[in-house]
Amino acid sequence: MTGPALSDAHGSSGARLIDGKGFAARLTQDIATEVSAFYDRHRITPGLAVVLVGNDPASEVYVRNKALQTHRAGMRSFMHMLPATTSQEELLGLIARLNVDPEIHGILVQLPLPGGLDPVAVTNAIVPEKDVDGLGVVNAGRLALGLPGIVPCTPLGCLLLLRHYVGDMRGQHALVIGASNLVGRPMAQLLLQEGCTVTVAHIDTRDTAALARQADIVVVATGVRELVRGDWIRPGATVIDVGISRVSLPGGRTRLVGDVKFDEVAPHAGLITPVPGGVGPMTIACLLRNTLDAARTIVEGRAP
Amino acid sequence: MTGPALSDAHGSSGARLIDGKGFAARLTQDIATEVSAFYDRHRITPGLAVVLVGNDPASEVYVRNKALQTHRAGMRSFMHMLPATTSQEELLGLIARLNVDPEIHGILVQLPLPGGLDPVAVTNAIVPEKDVDGLGVVNAGRLALGLPGIVPCTPLGCLLLLRHYVGDMRGQHALVIGASNLVGRPMAQLLLQEGCTVTVAHIDTRDTAALARQADIVVVATGVRELVRGDWIRPGATVIDVGISRVSLPGGRTRLVGDVKFDEVAPHAGLITPVPGGVGPMTIACLLRNTLDAARTIVEGRAP
Repeated sequence: MTGPALSDAHGSSGARLIDGKGFAARLTQDIATEVSAFYDRHRITPGLAVVLVGNDPASEVYVRNKALQTHRAGMRSFMHMLPATTSQEELLGLIARLNVDPEIHGILVQLPLPGGLDPVAVTNAIVPEKDVDGLGVVNAGRLALGLPGIVPCTPLGCLLLLRHYVGDMRGQHALVIGASNLVGRPMAQLLLQEGCTVTVAHIDTRDTAALARQADIVVVATGVRELVRGDWIRPGATVIDVGISRVSLPGGRTRLVGDVKFDEVAPHAGLITPVPGGVGPMTIACLLRNTLDAARTIVEGRAP
Repeated sequence: MTGPALSDAHGSSGARLIDGKGFAARLTQDIATEVSAFYDRHRITPGLAVVLVGNDPASEVYVRNKALQTHRAGMRSFMHMLPATTSQEELLGLIARLNVDPEIHGILVQLPLPGGLDPVAVTNAIVPEKDVDGLGVVNAGRLALGLPGIVPCTPLGCLLLLRHYVGDMRGQHALVIGASNLVGRPMAQLLLQEGCTVTVAHIDTRDTAALARQADIVVVATGVRELVRGDWIRPGATVIDVGISRVSLPGGRTRLVGDVKFDEVAPHAGLITPVPGGVGPMTIACLLRNTLDAARTIVEGRAP
């Protein structure tokens, strides 16, 4: 329940900032401590395998970052960088080997895959207990049924921020804007399990602004930059912005913006995540969390 | 888009009745025809195994009905009625045999199970391609991810009625009241896939009536009899009542009522399911549909 208050032009107090960067740093530090204790107990270091196929520059940055953070948290990081010409059979063969490799506790295949490779088949080739992205059928089913499992990193990160900054969400009305398998749908499941009344809006929704005005919590994951405007948010609501886009400024510079028009929304909101420094850092921290939890499940035989 | 119009005391036109009983009868007839064609192609008759543990009288009625309808649709029906003293090990042993039995294409374990038996472990012991109740982790995950799979019978029945009577639901706001794994949650997933904006309300929701007043489609599955009142429903909305409770009348007679106060709601609604004769008959018809589809998947090797 901390974070600096923003001032705003209308003289009201304005939103407190949700400090995802700081929270993620503390979470990563805690994980590093737990990794060390895990090693002391078992003489095993959790290991994450990251598989990148092709040369998408954004994906290269993401996987490098994931590998670096994994290493910094004291875990082993294995990078498998394959050419765009890799066949489905070769990729499935690699996953089959990683599935049975005792040094590997988490497997992540960076999406999107080059054309010709089936992301559903590839994702579901990972054994559920090493599926640290939580995108396979078994972990999605566990989440849908309220059973323990591995939850996708970005919605898990949003949930941890909400639990910390909002606390008990029972009975609050949450609006999730965006219905992707990666963020919106698992986010809706998590909020339902927290006791929220949950509405999911998407591209076909008629009046998303009107729905947003009724919500206590708004989570936005659309990829449409600055979609959510100031008059969408009711005073005191909590706003979680999952979007991140780079926009060009005059003079050749660039700036990162989210799916929320921050300057308009912040004066009304009670709590808001900035972009950058909000949800983004939580995604990698939750990947580390999932990898450590996967190692525990595999090594200590706990329920997945 | 058929069904008789109800008259009402206020002189407005009133809702058209959704004839679940008639729709289910036609669906069952179509399935019988397909079962016959399937036999002609493969010389295989789809078979459903229904497992009942203990002597719950309501469950006995349900499984007898399921077996009878299965038989009437030209499929084989196998009943396994076990004493309440059955151990988890014995039950899992039976499921393991049914899983590999080539005469069995669908396996249904009637819930609730007697105390001491773990319904999650038992449900998930059924191989996904024979899980005709669609309640296992794999089928729940497929539904959550929008992949083909076996959908739980009651929400599937509601969906078929909605598709027939409403048609294209894209952009409509659907409210699901009740968040159970059996009905509410899978129903929400199905409506989302139809392009609805979906809200899920439940026991912790603050003002379900206000949410209902905004909805184009209301699906109620709470088990709270006559929860939904006349002033909850906006004119012309579609109301699907999954509930069914038996209430006592003076003189020792009884009557079946749903989760919707029918006499109040029908004058406002555009379309409404009666109780009985609405969703109820669709559940068994969809079980037959799922069993035939499971047989096709297993025998013809189609995607599950």
